[in-house]
Amino acid sequence: MANEKKRKVAVVGCGSVGTFAARAIMASSDLELVGIVRRPESLSRGVPPELRDIPVVSSIESLDGVEAACLAVPTRQVPEHAERILSLGINTVDSYDIHGELVNVKKRLDTIAREAGSVAVISAGWDPGTDSLIRVILEIMAPSGITHTNFGPGMSMGHTCAVKAIPGVKDAISMTYPKGQGLHRRVVYVELDEDADFDSVKEAVLKDPYFSNDETAVILSDDIDSLRNSGHGVLIERSGVSGGASNQRFKFEMSINNPALTGQIMVGAMRASLKQPPGAYTLPELPLIDFLCGDRDRLLKRLV
Amino acid sequence: MANEKKRKVAVVGCGSVGTFAARAIMASSDLELVGIVRRPESLSRGVPPELRDIPVVSSIESLDGVEAACLAVPTRQVPEHAERILSLGINTVDSYDIHGELVNVKKRLDTIAREAGSVAVISAGWDPGTDSLIRVILEIMAPSGITHTNFGPGMSMGHTCAVKAIPGVKDAISMTYPKGQGLHRRVVYVELDEDADFDSVKEAVLKDPYFSNDETAVILSDDIDSLRNSGHGVLIERSGVSGGASNQRFKFEMSINNPALTGQIMVGAMRASLKQPPGAYTLPELPLIDFLCGDRDRLLKRLV
Repeated sequence: MANEKKRKVAVVGCGSVGTFAARAIMASSDLELVGIVRRPESLSRGVPPELRDIPVVSSIESLDGVEAACLAVPTRQVPEHAERILSLGINTVDSYDIHGELVNVKKRLDTIAREAGSVAVISAGWDPGTDSLIRVILEIMAPSGITHTNFGPGMSMGHTCAVKAIPGVKDAISMTYPKGQGLHRRVVYVELDEDADFDSVKEAVLKDPYFSNDETAVILSDDIDSLRNSGHGVLIERSGVSGGASNQRFKFEMSINNPALTGQIMVGAMRASLKQPPGAYTLPELPLIDFLCGDRDRLLKRLV
Repeated sequence: MANEKKRKVAVVGCGSVGTFAARAIMASSDLELVGIVRRPESLSRGVPPELRDIPVVSSIESLDGVEAACLAVPTRQVPEHAERILSLGINTVDSYDIHGELVNVKKRLDTIAREAGSVAVISAGWDPGTDSLIRVILEIMAPSGITHTNFGPGMSMGHTCAVKAIPGVKDAISMTYPKGQGLHRRVVYVELDEDADFDSVKEAVLKDPYFSNDETAVILSDDIDSLRNSGHGVLIERSGVSGGASNQRFKFEMSINNPALTGQIMVGAMRASLKQPPGAYTLPELPLIDFLCGDRDRLLKRLV
């Protein structure tokens, strides 16, 4: 790897996912972080000390030779950022997490990417993302049966962003607790703007498509900061049938720092994006070996 | 799928893996089992009742229009079968399980497959195979850290075949027990031919590359049949670092009927083989969605 040219990449957004993605890039021997793209109004804000030597700009066009961008922005802003950056001929990777919409988003980005000769890897977080890979593997192993994906306990970033976008909400966190069998309870803590009405905020939360299918409690808090913790987890279970044999039992479990994992997976996806023909892809449509850094035969010898 | 033409496939070998693979094919709406290939001396043996309508032949050339073959044969016979069948322009799938050799076998098969316009998917069982996919995903999620693969308790088919191939062994099973941290104890039960010497059989087992790296006990038995059970399992654990954050913890666990799982995964790999350009591939080199039956967008909508 030392003799190969590092591939130039950028991170769009400098929240927790963006910061961890930047760190993951700096720890990769095959990638070079050429810049961080922030909104103009955030340019004056500080960045974590280890990123101090990285140029911070307000537009990706100000950076030279970027081949791939990690879109560490709120999920609902992903399609607009991706469309613009893909059309510049730069690959994008996102962690778009609205399960019901992602196939449609993929179709739109696919058209743009093919025209511009770029690659989009969409929904490249852990769910959707690596959890999706696990669910696919479990169906390869046992095509008939039931899979349960149980999230938490932990703060959901997508859900939290959705609550924060509600008018009157000053700050919020949305916690997810597994009830078993793939059912969840959401507990939303909100800190309000001075003149905001709790009942209307609560109603807006309960109506949001992120929450409308789950049991949800909304709790008023005067100090969201003291509740913060990036720990999260998942338990994916399947019992199914392989070749006519029942009672094949599978379990995948993890306990993780959520934005750190998301940022790391997105960096692997940027690497994979550089090896694909133009178009848009979800994780199960890509060879997994393309996400890893290093010589392919040596990786296969060690991991297969 | 109903309106699409089923793809014609065959199974080579009619042991436990071959039988489960045949059952898995018959349960697939997109594949048609056109025949089972057995050694000439086994042609007169019966097949399980549900396979009675399937032609049993001694050579794959006797079957019309086969596009892919599942090589359910002892691992050391895989390369020779694969080379011959690939050169006929027929895809092959195997569960070759000698980890140290598989990259070399892949290279040889790749040359033959590219020349003949066929596809080989090698080491498409559960380890190597789906476990390899899990190990790759864990490194995508946390590039730095240690993975332990703990097998068992269960009978290892590869190890059992290796023991059975030793002169003087009438029948055998090789059990694997996890000691933790990826270390294993092997317990080999052997039933001997009448004139065989236990000590020389034991020495041959201990010297075999399948056993030489593990603590191994060899036990004489006069009734191997009463010990048989196809249950097996694995626990893969990793603790690692994502984006600089340590203590990311992952666990994959399964408890399964071993030949049933192997046969089922090989059938998914046959399906995937029909979607690739000529060459030889291990599982991490293939898009996982290609292993599943059904409309791609509907699968992605449900599983991503």
